[in-house]
Amino acid sequence: MSVLTNAQTLGPKSGNIQQTLGILGGGQLGRMICQAAIPLNISIAILDPSDECPARSVCTRFQKGSFKDYQTVLDFGRSVDVLSIEIEDVNIEALLQLKSEGKVISPEPEAIQLIQDKGLQKLFYQKEHLPTMPFELFENAAEVREAIAQNRFTFPFVQKTRRAGYDGLGVLVVRSESDLSRLFDVPSVVEVCCDIDKEIAVIVARNAQGECVVYDPIGMDFDPRANLISQLVYPAHLSAEITQSAIVLAKNVIEKLNMTGLLAVELFLDKNGQLQINEVAPRPHNSGHQTIESTITSQYEQHLRSVLNLPLGSTHIKVPSVMLNLLGEPGFSGPVAYEGVSECLALAGVKIHLYGKAETRPFRKMGHVTILDQSPAEADRKAEIVRNTLKVKSL
Amino acid sequence: MSVLTNAQTLGPKSGNIQQTLGILGGGQLGRMICQAAIPLNISIAILDPSDECPARSVCTRFQKGSFKDYQTVLDFGRSVDVLSIEIEDVNIEALLQLKSEGKVISPEPEAIQLIQDKGLQKLFYQKEHLPTMPFELFENAAEVREAIAQNRFTFPFVQKTRRAGYDGLGVLVVRSESDLSRLFDVPSVVEVCCDIDKEIAVIVARNAQGECVVYDPIGMDFDPRANLISQLVYPAHLSAEITQSAIVLAKNVIEKLNMTGLLAVELFLDKNGQLQINEVAPRPHNSGHQTIESTITSQYEQHLRSVLNLPLGSTHIKVPSVMLNLLGEPGFSGPVAYEGVSECLALAGVKIHLYGKAETRPFRKMGHVTILDQSPAEADRKAEIVRNTLKVKSL
Repeated sequence: MSVLTNAQTLGPKSGNIQQTLGILGGGQLGRMICQAAIPLNISIAILDPSDECPARSVCTRFQKGSFKDYQTVLDFGRSVDVLSIEIEDVNIEALLQLKSEGKVISPEPEAIQLIQDKGLQKLFYQKEHLPTMPFELFENAAEVREAIAQNRFTFPFVQKTRRAGYDGLGVLVVRSESDLSRLFDVPSVVEVCCDIDKEIAVIVARNAQGECVVYDPIGMDFDPRANLISQLVYPAHLSAEITQSAIVLAKNVIEKLNMTGLLAVELFLDKNGQLQINEVAPRPHNSGHQTIESTITSQYEQHLRSVLNLPLGSTHIKVPSVMLNLLGEPGFSGPVAYEGVSECLALAGVKIHLYGKAETRPFRKMGHVTILDQSPAEADRKAEIVRNTLKVKSL
Repeated sequence: MSVLTNAQTLGPKSGNIQQTLGILGGGQLGRMICQAAIPLNISIAILDPSDECPARSVCTRFQKGSFKDYQTVLDFGRSVDVLSIEIEDVNIEALLQLKSEGKVISPEPEAIQLIQDKGLQKLFYQKEHLPTMPFELFENAAEVREAIAQNRFTFPFVQKTRRAGYDGLGVLVVRSESDLSRLFDVPSVVEVCCDIDKEIAVIVARNAQGECVVYDPIGMDFDPRANLISQLVYPAHLSAEITQSAIVLAKNVIEKLNMTGLLAVELFLDKNGQLQINEVAPRPHNSGHQTIESTITSQYEQHLRSVLNLPLGSTHIKVPSVMLNLLGEPGFSGPVAYEGVSECLALAGVKIHLYGKAETRPFRKMGHVTILDQSPAEADRKAEIVRNTLKVKSL
């Protein structure tokens, strides 16, 4: 048993590393949180419905169960000292009950609840005068069609389901009349299409003492086939002015949400040079994987520091990078087989991360690759080789 | 189940990451090897006599047993695809038997056998014309006394036991007649004291394809109380000429040993500007901890790459650093309690590594701290704060 007595000079509210941290969800983000916990010897308990989830082999304690189930989350929450998440689609009622019992939960249930619902997110931005594209909320597809008929929206526009949007599911770009048959017939947000110059993400962290640190903006390139991020550039190539605006905006959002933990703020930079908030995620984010090697403090370690109310870490960039998601190759499903690992390991600065998933399927996130290089051109050159060489197939 | 088909362009001898790697020993070095294996999803089996060894909680499979026992090592070796070590004090006969059965063992048993015996090490340097301090081998204390009586050695000199020297045990500096009563009465090496200007270490890696990479020299400061490294400076402050000589020498040693894997070469720089080999270790080394955050490829990932015959990784330094061992405070034994963790986490660039040992005792290696900073003066300033703040005590 180890006891920490490290909090004296930081006041009674500061955290310690001796507590058991429970995480709802055991996917790759949970796995990388666990990896960051090992050097600090922090005990992590994971709740996930899958026996084969990526975090299982690296956590301190695994509990099989649904993070969407009230009683399961309640029981799991009572078994840990501090409770956090790696996915926002969790049972909020259980979190609110746990909070009322005095459990420390970070991010706060109220923030998760707001972020879970893209409609509430948009209303929050509107209320707080935070920049976001104009929108309207609808209950079903018929209401959306009626709004179109009344010319309240013009093509193209974006429909997003209010709940359970994840990895590109639940987002539809409606370009013309012919797309209307594909409208989601559930509560949704319809918003004006942004005339996008660049998509960026800014990761910000805040602890219970109100300390706040922000990472440099990350440039996001999307793969239109998979509707997933295909390449990230860190730091994003932006003017100093836009960089500063994005950092201030991200800090503003986490403070207005009054939340602790990590928040990834996805932004559009429109062709008028204005930043618009797309959406936020209250946890480590796909766009922050490269902080593991690029930055003094990774987003995963920062998540631990922020939710445990430890001092936040430096976000200084050690070496710039490009990051690629490693997705299941289209046309392959079943037991995973990797191609090109050795060839890519032979490239200086190429760091391969495999999530240990036993089965692949088309576009499933199976890993990522961070390419460290001082030269952006050289990083791009290596990224192109990795894209053409490293493949996730099945037997 | 996952299968790798990554070896095509690198020839039939190149490695893959799908094999199970067995490691003899589960101390902190084994723990950090396991941590490096997670992103590559490499399965690691650990053999260690202690149920509570640091590697246990992070390895894929743990087997309790002695790495010094013939049958235990034989059985364990047969259960893995490739066998390696994190400590050199292992049963060599079992390794030689496994090798004769076709098992891939890296580093090679012959190299481990030679390095286990400081007498054989010295004879090897002599035979290969590698620079090392003049020495003589003795069977017992009486023989040493006789040599002194015959003026074959003058004070001060160093006596090292040939076997089982570890962490400063088995090394005696004999300064005068009065120290002679403390001579080890076992087979030993007696060598002339080097007039040391600096102690440095150079870590070199080599794979089965003969690829070889070298890390920049690391400057080592010793704590005379504990006879352990107290602070490392990476890279060492040396002239370009000495740096180059040290790198060439380390490469020379691993090639002459004809070994694969990682080799830490400890060197003295004497006051005449000459490098002298002190001793070597065929595994990740205490002097290389800071490569985790300082270097593109950590020594632990490099160990995996070299023993699995994967392409070796870049040893480019991302950010210079100072590293401190975190030792059990004198006067405290029992269940561990850390002091000052939060205070140190509040310093930018301070990375704390705790090995998860349940019990402390005076001078036991309980963790280490790497301090990343572009400015050597700033790194030293933070190191001083860490030394005065972060304490390992007991309840």
